[in-house]
Amino acid sequence: MFESFITGHWFNNEAKHIWSDAATLQAWLDVEAALARAQAELAVIPAAAAKTIAEMADVRRFDLSQLSEAIAFAQHPLVPVLHRFERLCGEPAAGFIHWGATTQNIFDTAASLQMVKTHRLLTGYLDQAMLALSKLALEHQATVMPGRTHGQHALPMTFGFKLSGWLDELDRGRHRLNQRLASSFPASMGGAIGTFAATGEVGRKVEARMADQLGLHAAGLPMRSSYDRSADYISALGLLAGTAQKIAQDIVFMQRTEIGEAAEAFHMGKVGSSTMAQKRNPSTALVLTSLARMLRGRIPLALEAMVRMDEGDSSATNVTDSLLPEIAIIATSVAQTLARLAEGLVVHPDAMRRNLGLSNGLIASEAAMMRLTRLMGRHQAHHLLYEAAQRAQSEGMPFMQAICEHPLFTQHALPQDLAKSLEASAYVGESVSLTLETVARTTGLRQAGPAH
Amino acid sequence: MFESFITGHWFNNEAKHIWSDAATLQAWLDVEAALARAQAELAVIPAAAAKTIAEMADVRRFDLSQLSEAIAFAQHPLVPVLHRFERLCGEPAAGFIHWGATTQNIFDTAASLQMVKTHRLLTGYLDQAMLALSKLALEHQATVMPGRTHGQHALPMTFGFKLSGWLDELDRGRHRLNQRLASSFPASMGGAIGTFAATGEVGRKVEARMADQLGLHAAGLPMRSSYDRSADYISALGLLAGTAQKIAQDIVFMQRTEIGEAAEAFHMGKVGSSTMAQKRNPSTALVLTSLARMLRGRIPLALEAMVRMDEGDSSATNVTDSLLPEIAIIATSVAQTLARLAEGLVVHPDAMRRNLGLSNGLIASEAAMMRLTRLMGRHQAHHLLYEAAQRAQSEGMPFMQAICEHPLFTQHALPQDLAKSLEASAYVGESVSLTLETVARTTGLRQAGPAH
Amino acid sequence: MFESFITGHWFNNEAKHIWSDAATLQAWLDVEAALARAQAELAVIPAAAAKTIAEMADVRRFDLSQLSEAIAFAQHPLVPVLHRFERLCGEPAAGFIHWGATTQNIFDTAASLQMVKTHRLLTGYLDQAMLALSKLALEHQATVMPGRTHGQHALPMTFGFKLSGWLDELDRGRHRLNQRLASSFPASMGGAIGTFAATGEVGRKVEARMADQLGLHAAGLPMRSSYDRSADYISALGLLAGTAQKIAQDIVFMQRTEIGEAAEAFHMGKVGSSTMAQKRNPSTALVLTSLARMLRGRIPLALEAMVRMDEGDSSATNVTDSLLPEIAIIATSVAQTLARLAEGLVVHPDAMRRNLGLSNGLIASEAAMMRLTRLMGRHQAHHLLYEAAQRAQSEGMPFMQAICEHPLFTQHALPQDLAKSLEASAYVGESVSLTLETVARTTGLRQAGPAH
Amino acid sequence: MFESFITGHWFNNEAKHIWSDAATLQAWLDVEAALARAQAELAVIPAAAAKTIAEMADVRRFDLSQLSEAIAFAQHPLVPVLHRFERLCGEPAAGFIHWGATTQNIFDTAASLQMVKTHRLLTGYLDQAMLALSKLALEHQATVMPGRTHGQHALPMTFGFKLSGWLDELDRGRHRLNQRLASSFPASMGGAIGTFAATGEVGRKVEARMADQLGLHAAGLPMRSSYDRSADYISALGLLAGTAQKIAQDIVFMQRTEIGEAAEAFHMGKVGSSTMAQKRNPSTALVLTSLARMLRGRIPLALEAMVRMDEGDSSATNVTDSLLPEIAIIATSVAQTLARLAEGLVVHPDAMRRNLGLSNGLIASEAAMMRLTRLMGRHQAHHLLYEAAQRAQSEGMPFMQAICEHPLFTQHALPQDLAKSLEASAYVGESVSLTLETVARTTGLRQAGPAH
Repeated sequence: MFESFITGHWFNNEAKHIWSDAATLQAWLDVEAALARAQAELAVIPAAAAKTIAEMADVRRFDLSQLSEAIAFAQHPLVPVLHRFERLCGEPAAGFIHWGATTQNIFDTAASLQMVKTHRLLTGYLDQAMLALSKLALEHQATVMPGRTHGQHALPMTFGFKLSGWLDELDRGRHRLNQRLASSFPASMGGAIGTFAATGEVGRKVEARMADQLGLHAAGLPMRSSYDRSADYISALGLLAGTAQKIAQDIVFMQRTEIGEAAEAFHMGKVGSSTMAQKRNPSTALVLTSLARMLRGRIPLALEAMVRMDEGDSSATNVTDSLLPEIAIIATSVAQTLARLAEGLVVHPDAMRRNLGLSNGLIASEAAMMRLTRLMGRHQAHHLLYEAAQRAQSEGMPFMQAICEHPLFTQHALPQDLAKSLEASAYVGESVSLTLETVARTTGLRQAGPAH
Repeated sequence: MFESFITGHWFNNEAKHIWSDAATLQAWLDVEAALARAQAELAVIPAAAAKTIAEMADVRRFDLSQLSEAIAFAQHPLVPVLHRFERLCGEPAAGFIHWGATTQNIFDTAASLQMVKTHRLLTGYLDQAMLALSKLALEHQATVMPGRTHGQHALPMTFGFKLSGWLDELDRGRHRLNQRLASSFPASMGGAIGTFAATGEVGRKVEARMADQLGLHAAGLPMRSSYDRSADYISALGLLAGTAQKIAQDIVFMQRTEIGEAAEAFHMGKVGSSTMAQKRNPSTALVLTSLARMLRGRIPLALEAMVRMDEGDSSATNVTDSLLPEIAIIATSVAQTLARLAEGLVVHPDAMRRNLGLSNGLIASEAAMMRLTRLMGRHQAHHLLYEAAQRAQSEGMPFMQAICEHPLFTQHALPQDLAKSLEASAYVGESVSLTLETVARTTGLRQAGPAH
Repeated sequence: MFESFITGHWFNNEAKHIWSDAATLQAWLDVEAALARAQAELAVIPAAAAKTIAEMADVRRFDLSQLSEAIAFAQHPLVPVLHRFERLCGEPAAGFIHWGATTQNIFDTAASLQMVKTHRLLTGYLDQAMLALSKLALEHQATVMPGRTHGQHALPMTFGFKLSGWLDELDRGRHRLNQRLASSFPASMGGAIGTFAATGEVGRKVEARMADQLGLHAAGLPMRSSYDRSADYISALGLLAGTAQKIAQDIVFMQRTEIGEAAEAFHMGKVGSSTMAQKRNPSTALVLTSLARMLRGRIPLALEAMVRMDEGDSSATNVTDSLLPEIAIIATSVAQTLARLAEGLVVHPDAMRRNLGLSNGLIASEAAMMRLTRLMGRHQAHHLLYEAAQRAQSEGMPFMQAICEHPLFTQHALPQDLAKSLEASAYVGESVSLTLETVARTTGLRQAGPAH
Repeated sequence: MFESFITGHWFNNEAKHIWSDAATLQAWLDVEAALARAQAELAVIPAAAAKTIAEMADVRRFDLSQLSEAIAFAQHPLVPVLHRFERLCGEPAAGFIHWGATTQNIFDTAASLQMVKTHRLLTGYLDQAMLALSKLALEHQATVMPGRTHGQHALPMTFGFKLSGWLDELDRGRHRLNQRLASSFPASMGGAIGTFAATGEVGRKVEARMADQLGLHAAGLPMRSSYDRSADYISALGLLAGTAQKIAQDIVFMQRTEIGEAAEAFHMGKVGSSTMAQKRNPSTALVLTSLARMLRGRIPLALEAMVRMDEGDSSATNVTDSLLPEIAIIATSVAQTLARLAEGLVVHPDAMRRNLGLSNGLIASEAAMMRLTRLMGRHQAHHLLYEAAQRAQSEGMPFMQAICEHPLFTQHALPQDLAKSLEASAYVGESVSLTLETVARTTGLRQAGPAH
């Protein structure tokens, strides 16, 4: 999927690189080197050995296709790598490679290194997306459009307000990822079952020092059968997928032929259909939806793989070890695609205004409700407006006319201009101030020049 | 399921009570009352109205079965409640009920109140479970047993160490819930689409004051189409389910007829089978596994329901409004069942020792590896031990004998007592100190009296 | 959820009745009675005992709340029922109750009986829904509307054709359920682990005869750890949920304020909002979407619960035993809600025509493509139309004008009326004949009177 | 994941080949060629054009990396392929490529061709697995072992009977796949929205003839927004995953250090751990579990992607188009790994016997129950045995002694040898005959030579 000629371009190249075979092997070697260095510093192994190990910890010295065959034969993913590594280092250094470590320690710590890189990349795209949305929000802080609930016009609002909702959710999503990164992806070096059996008390110091060198936290209690830490970050990515899909779905709707309130970037040469020349599909938003589904759909696998037998269980780690790269690549692609979508979004205020007018004034019903309630109580007001609204819809009559002709209205002898004074665009509430606040809070952007 | 005569007893009664029809309606009324009070304080509505509203906000004044019928007819879950409420309050107070609010504001804020109660209950059971596990961990800090990976004996460890892994994971789970509660379940009062259209600037102050009165945070930007906040807490419950199921599964295994290392509490009258009188099933652990699956299986529904059309979408809120009570009840039941399981757990150190001896010494192979590596390098040591281990298994010979007879061993002229000196129970690494630390860190419990 | 005063009315009452505590207990008793009868016929137990057992197998003789307490104490769901049953029968009949059976045999066979009833109910609603859709399809076989792909107008089609797609999918869904019912829900009577240990060779005959009496198939090899049979039917319900949600989502869109092509039934008194009097929400379609999600979201739980330890595993059967009733009730409610939605659907051909015109002729681009290809090759035709379409959209010009003004068009000296002759409503392909065929094939309905 | 040097060997090479970029493009070209041929036969396009098209429909004439770039630019997966194809064919043939088709028609029909190949491969491995299990079942039809429920010994049975359960479930799984293949993966050629707009009545004949040539069924009503057909087969794969995981999990347990009843194939050079030389992990069974989880975990994505907007929705087809290859490869790998596991399974009847004896006779309690019930009624018998069993367990006393010493036993003056005559291995019920029947029914294998 990531490399297919059909779908390869959906996926972020840098993320694919971080998780490539070569980069993964290099991450393993980096961990082995850091382990040796830490152990040398603590006099667990000779300094010379650590030096040799660090020098040889270079993926270019390894032949991936040979390793691949050896791994298939041994049915073990690391031992063939260690054999090659030992040959490279020669005795006596060879004997001190992987000292007291277990395979999963190396894999988990290496994955932590790769996730730190992924995180930086991913949040960079999030920042980009949020900046683009913030600019749009400032620009359209007062652009009036219909707010919709349950697929129906509800109240007027501004497009800036809508964008504020997206920004706020993205900001929380970014915050979650930032907050969880370090605790979700620690360095682990507790050995076969996490007891530091092979290294004893000094093993814990080794773990701490190695973590420090790698810019990670130490696991402390490095149980291999605990996956809740990683699963916590992964869950946050699941939430991000939900947010991204919500945004994408709204944009697909806004670009609908009948709606036309927004459209994603278009370039000559972008093709919508092999036979329908006119098609301008919201293909970026649709790809974003797809990516978000792929990401969200992988969360249950991670949760299920928390349930591990005893002190180690490859029936679960096999799943998570191959799932994490997928999730990392898809999540980064979600963020990148969101950034591209946000940056290219074209807004059509005319269409927003046109759509706002479609309901013949019905969208202002709550405004009418609030005003009439003060005059006749909530119950009667709702009664009046409910009947007037149904009549307006059934008979295709302007809502204000239906209100004025309603018996309760005439009975209370209300002034005719009361109803007429209700104007949709005046009923956007705190849309503008909420927009300004949210933009400032989430991206620090502030309005340049005089306000609207 | 919650009320069935077959399965009702799996589920926590207090949680069922918190989410009962009556308690839910009361929570709605509490929110309406708090709203009115806040509005009166800010001079949005008359103080007298707020007083009447608060007095009438009592579930005992409502007839649930009548409401149920009216709701089915109106196909709206709140309007019939408001009608009854208005009749109770009478004019003019009636007109000020639900001022500027939308249905989802009431539901969400009420659910937040109910979740705060659920959280207290649930974390109380978690505390209980952790205390029981901590006591066991102290007691068995040095009880040696086989550590297992991939279903096979790996290294020796202590039962206290195993429990530490559970405690550490539970502690992180509890911490996640504590940390997220307030931000996940705010008070929302932004009206139909979150713009405070009906109330304007003062509406935001109303939301803040109301939140304060209810002991909640204010949503601030109360978008109805954002569900990431709640979904974040729900995800943390999903992680807790994973932890609970891992523990339950380990206990089911430890109680296996052949293993016998632990058993859950038994009382005369507990029945394992309708025909097999001897059965002592680990039924609490099995129920816990089931509950954890039910909980975990509901997470994807919550994530999917984050994807909401526009500014409000009942196709999603219908799902989450009925899912949240289920999740709350099941999650509390998971915690309660875990507490019961932990408190009743009976440990059999004899069986642990017996099982440890089963592998004819093979479990000490890593200890041998570490020792031999110092003498002949890692590669040769692994070679020697691999062949000796395979021979021991194929020929049913003691591991140490196979080591001593191996050509590499004799070739290096190693002393025979070297191999024999390896003793499984001596190879538990930092099991004890990690146990003591973890217990102290997670539950504050410290060893009474002299250490082992 | 099923009984809540808020959401209870979403769920089908008959299905709730089939799976009520009383009906479930009665189903258990029916199975015990059928077992005794079959065993008496095969001389395994005395005929008199079977007679007594059958007489006492009446739920009205049991006190559900007493049983509930006894079950919680025994932590076994059937033994307390058997105790009461024995007391009712008295010796010697009591001794022959449940002869050679295990709890899960009774539960599974009873669930099969309940599923047969559920199936009849559910497929009855499906028939109803399909009949309503068929009538609409015949009525609107030639009602032209825009066909849409990727959220954009694609080609014209008829509403009848759209409905045919729904019908075809529903028909396959119904067929799947019909085909799998008998094999998915057999009668099982193999005893504790399925070996017929307690009854031997005659046990298999008992299973077959009992199955026959209950109108079920015999399991044959009644492994308790095999759940694939039930999971197969459940999967088919998952597919049905997908179909229902697709239909519901289309209807929500068609009722959008801006689209207005269809609307679900409305009655005075149906309320859309507590404050927005005008709201006519597609609440039935939104509830249907929600129900479909609840149903679909439960499928993974059933699949996961196929993975069972050894010969029996209550950590899985606990889940499926309580999941099946939920699934049965929700699935029936999906079918019923779909029937209600289909029966009340109001179609607005005017709006369909209006929307068709919105794209300024662009929707006919494929028709133009097919015609121009014959004149200038596919490649040039796509080139011409692509550029004309982009120009039409960018400059807001009628598509046909853009075509006529394109250099390739003038260069080939094509007649101006060629382009103008392309008329959207003429380009509906086989919409009508496919509609007639599909309706006839799926519901047997045929056009009354002369064709259009 | 499929190509990684770490995990690549988990996945079936032939399946990877079927779904490689080159094979996928060839499948597209095969469909285009078949379409042209069918259209030529029906005089829709010139015969010469069809001939040219068929000749040029060769993947070796296409440059995949160039296409990859063009696809990324056009954001359309097929149009660049068609451009290259047109250049290869030259006019006039170029103009008749892809006549009346839409992209999704080509993709779906090509995927059907690839699924037919996948199905053959996959069911071949299933046959292999079942044959191996059948041989084992015949061999061990009478090998007695403990049957277990809820993790506890329940009744004795034979290993052949256990295998019968696996065989029966696999047989149903295979049957489901065979039955659904043709209807799940049809040929579709209805054009942009399925109306045959571009080709009219003859278009339906084209679809039928093309289907015939490709060895597929015609879709008939080729709605692009219907995915239930494919999802039906995919669901059957989900069930197969459940079966495979159940088997794998049982084998992991049977190979547990303490159980030792079976072990998967081992070869010198297979490595269990980088530091624990003795480890013989059930790595094939653990990989099978992992693959089954990966497969099962993808089912919800397919179900969710059934919900498609209108007449076509790439936010769903993007997902399924890239999911289907993954599912196909993983499912084949599940079947292949199962075959390898089954073929290499080593059985240890000694360990089975040893484990059977562990419960001190308790496993025969149901046999005792059946016998004592005839003498003292079911209720008293259960009472006697329940107390005897609890005493046996609490006091570590042989079950039979506890029975003989029970007051009810002595009170009824039952002969002491009655209890002693109960022998576990005699209580295997119909294990042997069920084994023979199941093997014969599922794989046609029959016992060679005289029965034991």
